[in-house]
Amino acid sequence: MEKNTRLILALDVLDSDEAIRISEAVTGHVDAIKVGYPLVLASGLQIIGKLAEYASIIADFKVADIPNTNRLICEQVFDAGADAVIVQGFTGHDSLEICVDLARERNKDIFVVTEMSHPGALDLMQDAGEKIARMAADQKASGVVAPATRPERVKEIRKIIGNELAIISPGVGAQGGSAADTIMAGTDWVIVGRKIYQSDDPAKAAKDIVSEIKDVL
Amino acid sequence: MEKNTRLILALDVLDSDEAIRISEAVTGHVDAIKVGYPLVLASGLQIIGKLAEYASIIADFKVADIPNTNRLICEQVFDAGADAVIVQGFTGHDSLEICVDLARERNKDIFVVTEMSHPGALDLMQDAGEKIARMAADQKASGVVAPATRPERVKEIRKIIGNELAIISPGVGAQGGSAADTIMAGTDWVIVGRKIYQSDDPAKAAKDIVSEIKDVL
Repeated sequence: MEKNTRLILALDVLDSDEAIRISEAVTGHVDAIKVGYPLVLASGLQIIGKLAEYASIIADFKVADIPNTNRLICEQVFDAGADAVIVQGFTGHDSLEICVDLARERNKDIFVVTEMSHPGALDLMQDAGEKIARMAADQKASGVVAPATRPERVKEIRKIIGNELAIISPGVGAQGGSAADTIMAGTDWVIVGRKIYQSDDPAKAAKDIVSEIKDVL
Repeated sequence: MEKNTRLILALDVLDSDEAIRISEAVTGHVDAIKVGYPLVLASGLQIIGKLAEYASIIADFKVADIPNTNRLICEQVFDAGADAVIVQGFTGHDSLEICVDLARERNKDIFVVTEMSHPGALDLMQDAGEKIARMAADQKASGVVAPATRPERVKEIRKIIGNELAIISPGVGAQGGSAADTIMAGTDWVIVGRKIYQSDDPAKAAKDIVSEIKDVL
């Protein structure tokens, strides 16, 4: 995944035509497009290959199963044309390792969820976040996912993982996180959804965020 | 999901024709068929509707996202014809609650993963297992998933959740768990995969396990 605009689009739409239209519009303004299960279940796995014509694709599947099932999922997603898969770390070292090993073989990326920003993430995930970040660093995953809504946590996670791993940060825009603050806190890419895909002019919305990012670099 | 044979088939194959052939063969011998993302990604979501002609379908998607994404996933899976979805509890009360509420509205089931049986489950999930079981009970989910490879844990989980919730237990057969021991430990359904779907005679393999279960009831 090339680091140019430092912006990732979270393409949280369900309709494949809309997904393609928006992806085409933001080409060049985003480094990657993140898609989740809702779009893939609605459109079929082949939507990944179609969107890959416009940008690198990150499959945000929060993969959280036993090692063998994790591998079967990542294999299909990479085969479909995705460049990266987002996996949960709470299922443990072996579930993560099989994904990281597969990604390495294929020159692809795995990003590991360290913590999440919804209220329920405080129940059990919050305490595990730093352990998961260390696990991701030990296994040399490509990076971790840490919320833009809590820039102070991004700084903490950066201390744990060092500079070898990337941080990608959702929560910018409609969820309240600031692109500039999150970049200054040490994230590599900010992830923006509604502010771009619900805009009448997705390309302009993306360009505005890229300008905001460039201003603080 | 009707409790007749107390047997669930874990249909961990990738080919849709094979999935249909095996499902047809075991009709009447299993109460449900559990399918995961590898089959659904390979065959499309509509495979769920096709297999639902032969038994109740449990979508073992280990759903582990923010509440809104969890809802979007469960909606599509129920719309496709599944009777139940397996979700992770690790992501917290709100991520679970939105799934349970949706299932209740539609007269469907949610089963919550309390702990898993692969080695990495000891890293972070094991300690959270009892909290997750209590969360599932508080929210009146349909049941929990607890490993047949550790019948003593099934007993502990039963004490926590009481008799209102069901327990379904994977790990019987090739993974070493015993159907009889797991039923005696208090599980409602045992989940068997390879021993049935890799058999030359899946119907006979299923019938043999059902006999073993009936012997201890």
